[in-house]
Amino acid sequence: MRPSGRAPDQMRAITIEPGFTRHAEGSCLIGFGETKVLVTASIEERVPPFLRGKGQGWVTAEYGMLPRATHTRGSREAAKGKQSGRTQEIQRLIGRSLRSVVDMTKLGERQITLDCDVIQADGGTRTASISGAWVALSLAVQGLMAKGLLTENPITAQVAAVSCGIWEGNPVLDLDYIEDSSAHADANFVLLDNGNIAEAQATAEGATYDEEALLRLLRLARIGCGEIFAAQRKAIA
Amino acid sequence: MRPSGRAPDQMRAITIEPGFTRHAEGSCLIGFGETKVLVTASIEERVPPFLRGKGQGWVTAEYGMLPRATHTRGSREAAKGKQSGRTQEIQRLIGRSLRSVVDMTKLGERQITLDCDVIQADGGTRTASISGAWVALSLAVQGLMAKGLLTENPITAQVAAVSCGIWEGNPVLDLDYIEDSSAHADANFVLLDNGNIAEAQATAEGATYDEEALLRLLRLARIGCGEIFAAQRKAIA
Amino acid sequence: MRPSGRAPDQMRAITIEPGFTRHAEGSCLIGFGETKVLVTASIEERVPPFLRGKGQGWVTAEYGMLPRATHTRGSREAAKGKQSGRTQEIQRLIGRSLRSVVDMTKLGERQITLDCDVIQADGGTRTASISGAWVALSLAVQGLMAKGLLTENPITAQVAAVSCGIWEGNPVLDLDYIEDSSAHADANFVLLDNGNIAEAQATAEGATYDEEALLRLLRLARIGCGEIFAAQRKAIA
Amino acid sequence: MRPSGRAPDQMRAITIEPGFTRHAEGSCLIGFGETKVLVTASIEERVPPFLRGKGQGWVTAEYGMLPRATHTRGSREAAKGKQSGRTQEIQRLIGRSLRSVVDMTKLGERQITLDCDVIQADGGTRTASISGAWVALSLAVQGLMAKGLLTENPITAQVAAVSCGIWEGNPVLDLDYIEDSSAHADANFVLLDNGNIAEAQATAEGATYDEEALLRLLRLARIGCGEIFAAQRKAIA
Amino acid sequence: MRPSGRAPDQMRAITIEPGFTRHAEGSCLIGFGETKVLVTASIEERVPPFLRGKGQGWVTAEYGMLPRATHTRGSREAAKGKQSGRTQEIQRLIGRSLRSVVDMTKLGERQITLDCDVIQADGGTRTASISGAWVALSLAVQGLMAKGLLTENPITAQVAAVSCGIWEGNPVLDLDYIEDSSAHADANFVLLDNGNIAEAQATAEGATYDEEALLRLLRLARIGCGEIFAAQRKAIA
Amino acid sequence: MRPSGRAPDQMRAITIEPGFTRHAEGSCLIGFGETKVLVTASIEERVPPFLRGKGQGWVTAEYGMLPRATHTRGSREAAKGKQSGRTQEIQRLIGRSLRSVVDMTKLGERQITLDCDVIQADGGTRTASISGAWVALSLAVQGLMAKGLLTENPITAQVAAVSCGIWEGNPVLDLDYIEDSSAHADANFVLLDNGNIAEAQATAEGATYDEEALLRLLRLARIGCGEIFAAQRKAIA
Repeated sequence: MRPSGRAPDQMRAITIEPGFTRHAEGSCLIGFGETKVLVTASIEERVPPFLRGKGQGWVTAEYGMLPRATHTRGSREAAKGKQSGRTQEIQRLIGRSLRSVVDMTKLGERQITLDCDVIQADGGTRTASISGAWVALSLAVQGLMAKGLLTENPITAQVAAVSCGIWEGNPVLDLDYIEDSSAHADANFVLLDNGNIAEAQATAEGATYDEEALLRLLRLARIGCGEIFAAQRKAIA
Repeated sequence: MRPSGRAPDQMRAITIEPGFTRHAEGSCLIGFGETKVLVTASIEERVPPFLRGKGQGWVTAEYGMLPRATHTRGSREAAKGKQSGRTQEIQRLIGRSLRSVVDMTKLGERQITLDCDVIQADGGTRTASISGAWVALSLAVQGLMAKGLLTENPITAQVAAVSCGIWEGNPVLDLDYIEDSSAHADANFVLLDNGNIAEAQATAEGATYDEEALLRLLRLARIGCGEIFAAQRKAIA
Repeated sequence: MRPSGRAPDQMRAITIEPGFTRHAEGSCLIGFGETKVLVTASIEERVPPFLRGKGQGWVTAEYGMLPRATHTRGSREAAKGKQSGRTQEIQRLIGRSLRSVVDMTKLGERQITLDCDVIQADGGTRTASISGAWVALSLAVQGLMAKGLLTENPITAQVAAVSCGIWEGNPVLDLDYIEDSSAHADANFVLLDNGNIAEAQATAEGATYDEEALLRLLRLARIGCGEIFAAQRKAIA
Repeated sequence: MRPSGRAPDQMRAITIEPGFTRHAEGSCLIGFGETKVLVTASIEERVPPFLRGKGQGWVTAEYGMLPRATHTRGSREAAKGKQSGRTQEIQRLIGRSLRSVVDMTKLGERQITLDCDVIQADGGTRTASISGAWVALSLAVQGLMAKGLLTENPITAQVAAVSCGIWEGNPVLDLDYIEDSSAHADANFVLLDNGNIAEAQATAEGATYDEEALLRLLRLARIGCGEIFAAQRKAIA
Repeated sequence: MRPSGRAPDQMRAITIEPGFTRHAEGSCLIGFGETKVLVTASIEERVPPFLRGKGQGWVTAEYGMLPRATHTRGSREAAKGKQSGRTQEIQRLIGRSLRSVVDMTKLGERQITLDCDVIQADGGTRTASISGAWVALSLAVQGLMAKGLLTENPITAQVAAVSCGIWEGNPVLDLDYIEDSSAHADANFVLLDNGNIAEAQATAEGATYDEEALLRLLRLARIGCGEIFAAQRKAIA
Repeated sequence: MRPSGRAPDQMRAITIEPGFTRHAEGSCLIGFGETKVLVTASIEERVPPFLRGKGQGWVTAEYGMLPRATHTRGSREAAKGKQSGRTQEIQRLIGRSLRSVVDMTKLGERQITLDCDVIQADGGTRTASISGAWVALSLAVQGLMAKGLLTENPITAQVAAVSCGIWEGNPVLDLDYIEDSSAHADANFVLLDNGNIAEAQATAEGATYDEEALLRLLRLARIGCGEIFAAQRKAIA
């Protein structure tokens, strides 16, 4: 029995509040249960130096956790003067995941930055970030199209992410903090709505795992992402 | 006529949502119109080195602005590797303001950190932060008292803050971003509910001001803080 | 009785030694009693990026304290790798104060940087810095005019600053270190010779204060700045 | 046909030179073709603060690339003043991988740091680092056992890593730099000699991939790691 | 003919104003012509970690240059967030030089820090710093002896430093800025009053030099240090 | 008797392996006994800002020590976020030394960076770096000439460096770590094959030294550099 009483293949409640802030070109507050992430999409009419003059755009991401998003207060990265390795790893993953569903040539010479700030954490902040970033990005692109700045939608597919893990010997979907702290393996899958995989990361924590376990985790992730895809579509409608 | 249509002595709508996050010992989302600040109060059972063994507590604050809280995206301080002078100035002001209404001996050897993170900015983020911090602090102290960890309330008064300024030649209360950008003088007052002043800061921007103007701004601030005090009391009830 | 034996409205000896260093376009060593600050004004024929091509100039300031300016040695900010929040707050105040008396269009596309380095500290280093910076700036502008690079003086007024505070219950002028350490309220006023206020900052330390106290502190500041204005005029004559 | 003329499931030449440096408790120079990584294992009789007094040890890793290990000179991280996100991501992966095969209780209260410095890069530096780190770690542990400081070997299995990817539509093993630059998907597998998986990471670059592709990449990785396991055993014999 | 009209073996005017600041245990303002350095000696009753409990003291130095000490304004190291390589090299040299004349066992478990801050620069700032540091250190030690905290003088000799160089083909003593900018070789000698050498550094700039030149520069340095030794003795008398 | 059994004027075995890495335009692994330094020369077709458009090139150097090059592991400078004063002092010395034998006008508007990374340390790492850097630089220049990018060799002489010191009262050549740790004076000489001196640095450690000692150390350095010059010529042949 999972601490939350959920079935092994049961997601937490997925909530997406589009347009949560007013200045960003796209934004949402996404919740996977008690995990809450504010995602904003900011459009800038310039690209990084390595892309200048190449006729294509760029999508990038930054990630942060408010100091008291967690059970005990963590130190503020701005005050410490540097981002942790964990933060950098996560924001690189978010950026790659979103770029996998954007046609950069259609986007044109502009950059969209996805800021994912964790307001409250209860496991799965990186997967909620990716899933919410797709919504914020889509809303920003809708705005560009509504203004006639884009004529073709550069977003080629939906992308969502969810964590799974082996907890007390059983594969379970969408780990919350209690499960995450004691899981023997911890995986994050970034999937497309066409069934393809953008990123698979499965890490042993304490005990290594076999190929069968990897496949079972992937199957759970497909279930979870199916639910997230539905919530995303509803949010941008 | 003010851009928002407000009367010179009219505050924007004050909203305070107590208990906005679940992990912090106290929290609220405070709004002054479109300015929204999430404040959390975190209790730690230790004090900074300079206070160890002195039988008293400490209250401190940190301030941050999400990159896209503003009209155009600002760079993330954690990524730049340092907090700006503005950020440091604001968080020092918040800490001083709250300390002015706490009896540190009654608090005991514990530290309360007030994290003020601006979710959306439209002028007055530092004054909303101070006003919300009092609510988060009060909720945290209520918790300590409910658990019997404190028998006497260390909070000695209410404290609130509001900005005022001279805009198009007239003193006005609670500047929003448009007014703030073109005000000739910009003041922040931190007031106690007993009428006393914890901090007064009035800065000329473009044109210096005279003593009469300073007093008129202070009078406006008294009106604004009166409304905030009422909202604070309601929020912690 | 004040520790120094001064009357409540008595300044310490004000000394200004113009031309203290030879390379700077303007400089002075200013003393408020045992507080000694070396101020240099450096002219550069360029402006910050945000002002380029706008036909106007800029005035900015930096502040530092030599490690052993104080009673016990403080750590060197260059060695620590960052400026403290206090340092940044002070240098922002100095810059704002001087900009309030300069017509940037008349200055033309050049920047004047005021470096205020505290050689010895005994309270009031920021107010001595502002007061000395006006002298260094004026000397630099005299040089520009002597060379024919400026035909009209861009300095529109004198600006000076002094601290006041409530010490043992009484408002006193120009706090020295002993008074500053135990004052109940601490204010800094930046005044113009036409009577206007460029900046007022009054902070409660321990005990908050009322409106009457604020006004009494301002009145003391007017007395002190009057003396500083006279010393400034003599220094640049 | 691969640029190097290799078959799809063909590794580059694996070379391991144990004892490459004299001060480290364990070391080797590992080569995957033209990729050369110097790995040292340093034993310290202390553990990080979070493990003190718990009767167990710790294994951690750091990774660096000499500035001219690559085709064009990269900037030195020590001179830039920070490690890149890529560097931090890699060193976290190396540390996790090695910890998956060490019984921390048997290791006792000591820390072993694995420094992986890339002398020359031609793709696969992180997988060569992990594979070489197992050798350096094993040599260090042999030393502890020879001195009687350990009576039981805390290393529970062999661990090795290899990259695979989809290049020109075909799954291939052990990407070199040319292949890596143009692969459509890029995976790193960290495997144990008992067949288990310590870490699987498969990232889409340009084109996402399906489950079948993931499995084919894993199968290639099993072939490659088999060869590395043999080379490791020979190196520590 | 030297730009200043000096003879090849002629020092600039040496001025030493002891007790220039009031808080430091020892201090002086030393001038070599237009080069002016403020040196303070700060005593702390503790030693660095590597010396704790060894019954001996430590002498160290820090060096800084005020931004406008030079002909054109340099950036402030505290604002840039790091000390330049030049600054670090100089402060290491000052520390070593002074340690060469202190018996650390006689000093006891205390540290003396010599802060050398260049108020105005015209060549020779590091040699003036060393020469002035000996005066500040001696005054601080006199204070310790006067208070009975030391019974034996830990200073074993006088130490002074001077620069020499090959300018327009001729060896000259005590280079000023104009000479220093165009010298073909530039040397700094740190000498003891017993004739011994604490440090010799001779660097080719543009043209290398021969052994005979090295010896001629050393001879000039002996002349210059002789004058400095006399000025030092007078300053501490 | 020296710990190594060497005669006072005896160098350790000098080994130079040219072309140690494949990407750099020039490289070698140089050994002075157990001290091993990897040096690479990287050519870039650009110069630093202060030289742009002046028709001349630049030669610079960076130095690093792998964390476990030494007897006990040192912390990684990239992880600490800054280069130590020692590192900066050494890399400045290497750069100056190499520039003393390059005609920058003949080099043309290109920069050659010499990266010196210590793989294993046993004393003399800076002198081995300089000596190896000349080889790497020469190989890189040979490549430019072979490609016809240079028609005249910009290298004007050979440069090499060696350490000497006074150990147990006797001048000895090429200190190893054991000697270096207990030497009373420690000198580094950078010499040209025409007998000239590019840099002489002789530092007292514990006991100061006299002029005769300085000359005896220089004579030893001439013997050592003679051997290094021969090894360099052989390496580039």
